[in-house]
Formats: sequence, C-alpha cells, structure tokens
Amino acid sequence: MTIIADRLAELNIVLPSPAAPIAAYVPTVEANGMLYVSGQLPFRADGSLITGHLGVDYDVEHGRQAAERCAIMLLAQISAALGGNLDRVERIVKLGVFVACDSHFTDQPKVANGASELMVAVFGDAGRHARSAVGVPVLPLNAAVEADAVVAIRPA
Amino acid sequence: MTIIADRLAELNIVLPSPAAPIAAYVPTVEANGMLYVSGQLPFRADGSLITGHLGVDYDVEHGRQAAERCAIMLLAQISAALGGNLDRVERIVKLGVFVACDSHFTDQPKVANGASELMVAVFGDAGRHARSAVGVPVLPLNAAVEADAVVAIRPA
Amino acid sequence: MTIIADRLAELNIVLPSPAAPIAAYVPTVEANGMLYVSGQLPFRADGSLITGHLGVDYDVEHGRQAAERCAIMLLAQISAALGGNLDRVERIVKLGVFVACDSHFTDQPKVANGASELMVAVFGDAGRHARSAVGVPVLPLNAAVEADAVVAIRPA
Repeated sequence: MTIIADRLAELNIVLPSPAAPIAAYVPTVEANGMLYVSGQLPFRADGSLITGHLGVDYDVEHGRQAAERCAIMLLAQISAALGGNLDRVERIVKLGVFVACDSHFTDQPKVANGASELMVAVFGDAGRHARSAVGVPVLPLNAAVEADAVVAIRPA
Repeated sequence: MTIIADRLAELNIVLPSPAAPIAAYVPTVEANGMLYVSGQLPFRADGSLITGHLGVDYDVEHGRQAAERCAIMLLAQISAALGGNLDRVERIVKLGVFVACDSHFTDQPKVANGASELMVAVFGDAGRHARSAVGVPVLPLNAAVEADAVVAIRPA
Repeated sequence: MTIIADRLAELNIVLPSPAAPIAAYVPTVEANGMLYVSGQLPFRADGSLITGHLGVDYDVEHGRQAAERCAIMLLAQISAALGGNLDRVERIVKLGVFVACDSHFTDQPKVANGASELMVAVFGDAGRHARSAVGVPVLPLNAAVEADAVVAIRPA
C-alpha cells in the first residue's frame, strides 16, 4: 500500500465510488500541475445525501459531518483522477466551502472545519490549505454543504 | 477561418462585443498559461439582461438560457483576450456558476448545464470542465446567473 | 523601503497583523508561482469587524469600506507570505468578493470596488485583476464582505 492509502486505512476511511457529475461537466481537470475538482456534495457511505439548511432545521455538528463527507468525496475524485495513487498529491491548495444556511447562521468556519481537518488528518502538512467559507441560501439537491478544491500534483 | 470560428458559425453563435466591466477590474488576466475570466452576466444578443430569481418569478428553462448567455459572454471575453483566436484555448478548466434563486430551488445543476453544454458544443473534449454550481440570493444588476472561468491556453 | 512599501506609506495604509485563520486552515498556499489567499474578513484598524447585511441595515458605502478592509487584510496576508516584500507581487490575478445582503440588493459591483480600487492604488497596472462579485445571505461572524485572492508572484 502507499503512504496515503495506509493513512486512510488507519483513519478507517473507505473512499466511496466517486459520484458521477449530475450534469454536463467532469469531476476533475488537470492543467499545468494543478488538479481542479468539481464541487462535491455530502453523500454518506450508504449513498444518501446530507441535506437541509443550517440554523433552521440543523445545527453546526450536522454541518461539520456534511463538510467531512464532502472532503471524502473530494478524495474519491482526486484518487480516481490519479489512478488510485493519492501519494501524487503534493498539496491541497485551496478549498471552497459553501454552506446552506439561513441568514442568521454565522458558524460557516466551524462547519467547514469538518472538511479542513479531514484533509490534514489524511495528508499532514500537505493537507494544510487556503480556504473560503461562505453561506448560501440553497445548494443542488438541497445538500447541506458543497466543497470544491484546487490540488497541486506530482507528475505520474 | 479557424477551427473554433467555424464551429461557432455552424452553431449560429455570434459573439457579442465583450461587456465592459461594471467596475474597477478587468475582464481577463493571463498568468502562467492560465486565463482567469471575470464573472459574466447573461446579456442577450440585443444587449438586454436576463434577470430574476429562479423558483420565484422564473423556472429552470429561464435559468438554462441565462447560463448559456453567460457562457457566450465568457467566450467573447476569452476571444478578445486571445486576439480573436479561440483555437488557442487548450482546455476550459473550471466554471463557477452562481444561480440567483429562492431557498427552495435545488436545480442549480440543470441551470448550469446551459453553460456547460455550450462549452462542449463549441470546444468538444477541450470544453469538458470541472464545475461548481451554487445558489445565491441575488446577483449584480439582478442577473439570473453569473459565471466565471479558468481556461488553459496555448502560447500565441 | 521597497517600491510597494513606499506606495503604502504614501496612501497612509498601515498593514495590520494578518488575521489568524478562524479554523483549521492556513492563510496562504503557494503553488507553481501562484499564491492562493484564504477568504479575508473586514477587520478595521482597531481590530473590530465590519458586520451586517447590505440593503437591510447598511448601505453601499458601508459595504465599500468593508471591501476595502478585506483588501487590506489580503495585503497583510500576502506580505506575510512573501517575507514582507510586496515587490514580489507580479500580478493580482483574481479576486472573489462575497457580499452579505438581502435579496433585493444588486450593487455588489460598487461594493467590491472598495477592494478593487485599493489593489490598483497600491500596485498600479499589476493590481488590475479579474473578479467575481456575488451576493450571499450571510458570512462568517456576520461579516459584511469576504474576499479571497489568487496572486502571481516572482521567485524570491
């Protein structure tokens, strides 16, 4: 096993089959050593989607779990793009985290930490990324969180 | 004519004059072989803007058409940046699509397809991109959709 | 003093201590000659945060000032990443500006100009950037504006 595959196993993280795009686009594009990953939704291991608006129906912890699942979906897409070899990840460069919430919910950073902390747990210092986290009124399929990524990768 | 100019003609797409920025920024910046394109609003061929909130005043099809116009505005900006030669587009790398809607509208992916499908119709495989699509409560000038892009380009 | 340090002094801009991330991420990541800067909130020189929703509690000018403070926070982070030498900035490539507002407020471009005009004042032509500006229902800590950036930098 590779280094990151070992780490995933230690963390008991099983990468799901990467989600097919809902629409007319592709999950990842590589250009000039950077991998751009499409916005991922928080599908659970059983394939169900974590939905809802934070601050109305659900609390911060619900959002954190959703963000963590988005991060796992990002990993699944990155792994698929790299032929299964996550050791080619040089750096998680940037995460964009969109949190579905009402206009009084201001804990987007705590929610987004669910994704950020997973990246650091998996990649160590290479998982430390720049980030933006903002509130939005609604997301595709009523998802609670959506996250996209820019990743620096090593040549195959 | 160049290859992509031919394709645009076959698709009956006439590129408009690229919109001047509403404000203190520029339409495109090239850096390290990547072209960053500012968020574009859905101006029709007659110069009017497609406005409104989806899920309230308007339906998915209104949004799809708006997203397609955003994509055409992106093409106009990319063309202007490349001296009119869209054959220098190596890959449409990433689209960011923001959909003005109420908090119950969850068909952002179908709306954003209006932009995504146009890119594939024009560029073929080179038009297949990563994408994020999210809902927002409102956009500049009450536009229905805004889209920005990152594009990999070949040297002149 | 360096060229940009001189310019900052002429403009009476004092860079604050860069804000520590609220959460599990880092302020900046450099990859392939590009610096990705995390979303910055509009902290005033006294450390207080500019908050509120535009179109409800506050007007465009409040938002402009908030966007300008976001830009100053971006400069502080860029400066820290470059060991204090802002002359290594080759180009401000892209700003993403998120404006907290109600669903009838459509002056996001005027608000975002507070950030854009500051970049041009500081860097001249190298400060002219691509930009997206969108409305959002709410931001972390109830901030009025959040802005992130992509910056092309020269080797040290």
